[in-house]
Amino acid sequence: MKTAVIAAGLALAAVRLGAETHRFVPTQFYNTYSAAHPPVLRIMPGDRVVTKTIDAAGTDWNGKSVGSGPNPQTGPFYVEGAEPGDMLAVTFDKIETNRVMAYSASLLAPYAVDPQAIAARTDREARRLTWTIEKARGVAHLDQADVQPGGLELPLRPMLGCVGVAPARKEAISTATPGPYGGNMDYAWLNAGVTLMLPVNEPGALLFIGDGHAQQGEGEVAGTGLETSMDVEFTVKVVKKQAIGWPRLENGTHIMVLGSARPLLEAFQHATTELQRWLMADYGMTERGAQTFMGQATEYEVANVVDPNFTVVAKIRKATLPRR
Amino acid sequence: MKTAVIAAGLALAAVRLGAETHRFVPTQFYNTYSAAHPPVLRIMPGDRVVTKTIDAAGTDWNGKSVGSGPNPQTGPFYVEGAEPGDMLAVTFDKIETNRVMAYSASLLAPYAVDPQAIAARTDREARRLTWTIEKARGVAHLDQADVQPGGLELPLRPMLGCVGVAPARKEAISTATPGPYGGNMDYAWLNAGVTLMLPVNEPGALLFIGDGHAQQGEGEVAGTGLETSMDVEFTVKVVKKQAIGWPRLENGTHIMVLGSARPLLEAFQHATTELQRWLMADYGMTERGAQTFMGQATEYEVANVVDPNFTVVAKIRKATLPRR
Amino acid sequence: MKTAVIAAGLALAAVRLGAETHRFVPTQFYNTYSAAHPPVLRIMPGDRVVTKTIDAAGTDWNGKSVGSGPNPQTGPFYVEGAEPGDMLAVTFDKIETNRVMAYSASLLAPYAVDPQAIAARTDREARRLTWTIEKARGVAHLDQADVQPGGLELPLRPMLGCVGVAPARKEAISTATPGPYGGNMDYAWLNAGVTLMLPVNEPGALLFIGDGHAQQGEGEVAGTGLETSMDVEFTVKVVKKQAIGWPRLENGTHIMVLGSARPLLEAFQHATTELQRWLMADYGMTERGAQTFMGQATEYEVANVVDPNFTVVAKIRKATLPRR
Amino acid sequence: MKTAVIAAGLALAAVRLGAETHRFVPTQFYNTYSAAHPPVLRIMPGDRVVTKTIDAAGTDWNGKSVGSGPNPQTGPFYVEGAEPGDMLAVTFDKIETNRVMAYSASLLAPYAVDPQAIAARTDREARRLTWTIEKARGVAHLDQADVQPGGLELPLRPMLGCVGVAPARKEAISTATPGPYGGNMDYAWLNAGVTLMLPVNEPGALLFIGDGHAQQGEGEVAGTGLETSMDVEFTVKVVKKQAIGWPRLENGTHIMVLGSARPLLEAFQHATTELQRWLMADYGMTERGAQTFMGQATEYEVANVVDPNFTVVAKIRKATLPRR
Repeated sequence: MKTAVIAAGLALAAVRLGAETHRFVPTQFYNTYSAAHPPVLRIMPGDRVVTKTIDAAGTDWNGKSVGSGPNPQTGPFYVEGAEPGDMLAVTFDKIETNRVMAYSASLLAPYAVDPQAIAARTDREARRLTWTIEKARGVAHLDQADVQPGGLELPLRPMLGCVGVAPARKEAISTATPGPYGGNMDYAWLNAGVTLMLPVNEPGALLFIGDGHAQQGEGEVAGTGLETSMDVEFTVKVVKKQAIGWPRLENGTHIMVLGSARPLLEAFQHATTELQRWLMADYGMTERGAQTFMGQATEYEVANVVDPNFTVVAKIRKATLPRR
Repeated sequence: MKTAVIAAGLALAAVRLGAETHRFVPTQFYNTYSAAHPPVLRIMPGDRVVTKTIDAAGTDWNGKSVGSGPNPQTGPFYVEGAEPGDMLAVTFDKIETNRVMAYSASLLAPYAVDPQAIAARTDREARRLTWTIEKARGVAHLDQADVQPGGLELPLRPMLGCVGVAPARKEAISTATPGPYGGNMDYAWLNAGVTLMLPVNEPGALLFIGDGHAQQGEGEVAGTGLETSMDVEFTVKVVKKQAIGWPRLENGTHIMVLGSARPLLEAFQHATTELQRWLMADYGMTERGAQTFMGQATEYEVANVVDPNFTVVAKIRKATLPRR
Repeated sequence: MKTAVIAAGLALAAVRLGAETHRFVPTQFYNTYSAAHPPVLRIMPGDRVVTKTIDAAGTDWNGKSVGSGPNPQTGPFYVEGAEPGDMLAVTFDKIETNRVMAYSASLLAPYAVDPQAIAARTDREARRLTWTIEKARGVAHLDQADVQPGGLELPLRPMLGCVGVAPARKEAISTATPGPYGGNMDYAWLNAGVTLMLPVNEPGALLFIGDGHAQQGEGEVAGTGLETSMDVEFTVKVVKKQAIGWPRLENGTHIMVLGSARPLLEAFQHATTELQRWLMADYGMTERGAQTFMGQATEYEVANVVDPNFTVVAKIRKATLPRR
Repeated sequence: MKTAVIAAGLALAAVRLGAETHRFVPTQFYNTYSAAHPPVLRIMPGDRVVTKTIDAAGTDWNGKSVGSGPNPQTGPFYVEGAEPGDMLAVTFDKIETNRVMAYSASLLAPYAVDPQAIAARTDREARRLTWTIEKARGVAHLDQADVQPGGLELPLRPMLGCVGVAPARKEAISTATPGPYGGNMDYAWLNAGVTLMLPVNEPGALLFIGDGHAQQGEGEVAGTGLETSMDVEFTVKVVKKQAIGWPRLENGTHIMVLGSARPLLEAFQHATTELQRWLMADYGMTERGAQTFMGQATEYEVANVVDPNFTVVAKIRKATLPRR
């Protein structure tokens, strides 16, 4: 038996020696986060899962329609030993595009712009545009001169729009919606290398993933990223008796909390409140010290303003955290 | 005569050869943005102003109380040739702390956290804390073990919370408030090196500056930065007949728009809408091309959620802009 | 066969002659709106149901705890012939208190007051208060001089906080939450005599009721009404192929739409938008005529600002509707 | 000397015997609430003013354009003895239309409907419509079959959209905007017979009135009422050392507070918070008693969702107030 340690010295559940690698190719896809769906796989903490996700509209890596929107999910994965009140930590080792085609919307979403700007549009037709992913060059491009003379080209930054677990209170929530259970947070910086921490509400946690984007602006203001299918690898860990209020994220430079709600300010408030709790619990800060520090050190990102709940990310640069 | 060019090839007003440098030490300070205040100085486009600002509560670089809060302003500076419908571009060559003391608040502001978290506080007393600026080491530190054992230390990143002009419609607006005229935007990245563009609403524009922070977190969630006095140098330019809706900002890496309003989403909408207008006017984008591009390329920052209007910044990384 | 006609001459499904009366005393109670719960009764359009609801915390008419909060529901009732795309119309002939005790909260809810007012409270302890219902006198009173010298007394106005059907998209939603499916709207004027119209999302509609209040202020700003158990009688009708976006309500004087969302303005927008649609579809108004009329004739009520979604009611006084 | 008593036994300033009646026909009109405007008249507490207002676009009772929008104001009236920290009580004895023509907008305002509904409009042209006021019949009608076949007719309910005083902090605020100083609250029930109470921020208070509507829906969702000129009579009183946070209103049945802000919820919060303060200060309620009572007794109205600040009215039916 060995013990792994992630962010901030959390007391992790012991992890088996010789953790297994599961290769799982999904064939069925769900449109709600719910404990009512039967697990597709039972995995142990420490296990690695090598799997795939289809795009937000249900098209897979072969261009075949195998699910339906919104955001059909791969999973759920049942994590042995995860019980309500625990925290599930999911580390993504790989999030990589696996086909050439991505699509995007081409109008700014209803709540992303002034209503007067919506009224003033000369062209209100919702059109889906097709982008080409060039993995070798690390870019995606749109080659439609009728949309933009000269086309558009952007660097790839593959991410998952959706990572979630079964919600609390026996709710079954549409995979369009982010919340305390994670879900459709659409955070542009949920890339390979991050660890996402989610509350466990049901035995086995029931982990779902989906909605890959080859690239996405912050706010997801057009209502889509560059929607495509993905190859994904992740490992899971369980932190026992570590109840958290909102998803937490850690990457090489930052610790973060993702709050989701409408209005946008409430998402901001949830993220800020949970971040204070985290600093006090795990980083030795006092009630007043944490607030004083946060006033001068917090950074924020807007993950999405287009889903049924909006998502705001409150961040602390690890280099600014007090030495412990 | 020579012609300077800033961001995106704007047609600037011709600038005099041999532009003047004005050294101005303020002795009177205003608490409203208003065309009713007599100009302290009349300057020409191209001129440089070397001046100072006092802190948000009215204390100067000698620790002497010479003005009163909120955010007493240096100015107004009357810019010759600036007329309603023009755009004023202010480039800050220097924003530098000029004393050792800064102060901050130490409770998260009312709208920055969940109301339940306010109800649950064990200590609700508003306390002002004193930080020490160590310019040589490039840091500010708080040495109060009763606030945080071991104290707090953060890198310096001097900024101006307030840069504004006289508002439209003959309004006189408190210097606590940001708006289309700029004002108390409290944007942590309004540092030396940036160019801020503001609409001209009154003859001479009437430029005000103030509210320096040695460092500030995004969102200004404690309601203050590290409030201190500043040495400031700036030059101004006038772009004729270039009506803009919201302040625009350019630094080495990004073009940005700062929208201010409540609720937070409306600030977001203003910034996004004006950014689209800018991309279409100056970067050769079509109505649909701009929207498609913004969906995948926009970044956002939350400048403040504590002032009478909140401020959101919509940004485009210049490297992603199409070649023109 | 006879045909009943409700609001605005809707084409109702034919109703059986000799409609049945069902007497149903619930023994099991649900905490989600979901099509996954087995119907307790199958009823025909035109049938009358005579039943009871327990209070929001699960206590019944005998003071016995038989369910758990929030808002345990009586039902679901399966309405024969109701199919997705239809509209269910529920007429409440009786909503009457059936016990002496009601309880209420005694602090204004987190989002109902300024956050500064929460910080300034001298007493933050959540306390549940017990009121006495005097049906003969038509009042409820609170006799606790420590809460209010002289006590408090208010007229009875019995209502149901919750009336809902199975949601769309296979979601299972907490009975704390109102939405397009109805649910916990907490509208103080959902009293005996009204007809509530709900969209049908699942075969049989699956009607749930609960959360009776002997009296409630608008906004439900303390987070509860005078929570108690109720005797309820209702009849149902089905309007075929009449898709509606939000619950509609009709009483003796008004037609109304109940929009639910956060922020409050979005609830307002949903109600206003659906009301325009209704006026155009059923009251002979043009697109511009409806808007012109609504500008001068609409009334609004705030049903709740305390549930996961807030609820706003847009109303038109029937006397102001154009003759048709 | 006699002493008048208004709402809730307030200790009023003594009022002269033989109070004067001033007949004032305005010829100059202001578009900001500001202490910088010279008073048109100096009046004593108890005095009556008989005057007129022009419509929101500047047209007077003769159909002559004499001012410019938005909401050109009659006044300011300087009230002798009114000092900062006092409360001004204005009783309107007459608010009556004085011409045949009124105009209205005919599209729902940008924030009043779902943004998707704006995108879906078939006709987006802003058109101003002319209504006919028939004072004898007590109605206003629109006779344009192209807008609505058969036309529209609504009862008259004359009101003032704007009643305000000079704001605090030397601000000059557009007459489009409501706030703590009153202003453009656009409350449909500010009719003849009410007493409006406003905070005094500047010596003399400086009272402005304007923006009469022959009729207006709640929320003012089309962005206008039936805009017309008015005959107005009012008397003023001063309550010394009675600082209030938001305008208060009393009519025959209710006491009310009008909170103004964006977002809508914040206006609601301001009104609710100030109402609690009022109940505790003047109606013998304890901190917990007031909250308990308000939860079951408060009513709300939405005055406007179209001005730079939105306005919400929190109301208590006087019949439900505890006997004192």
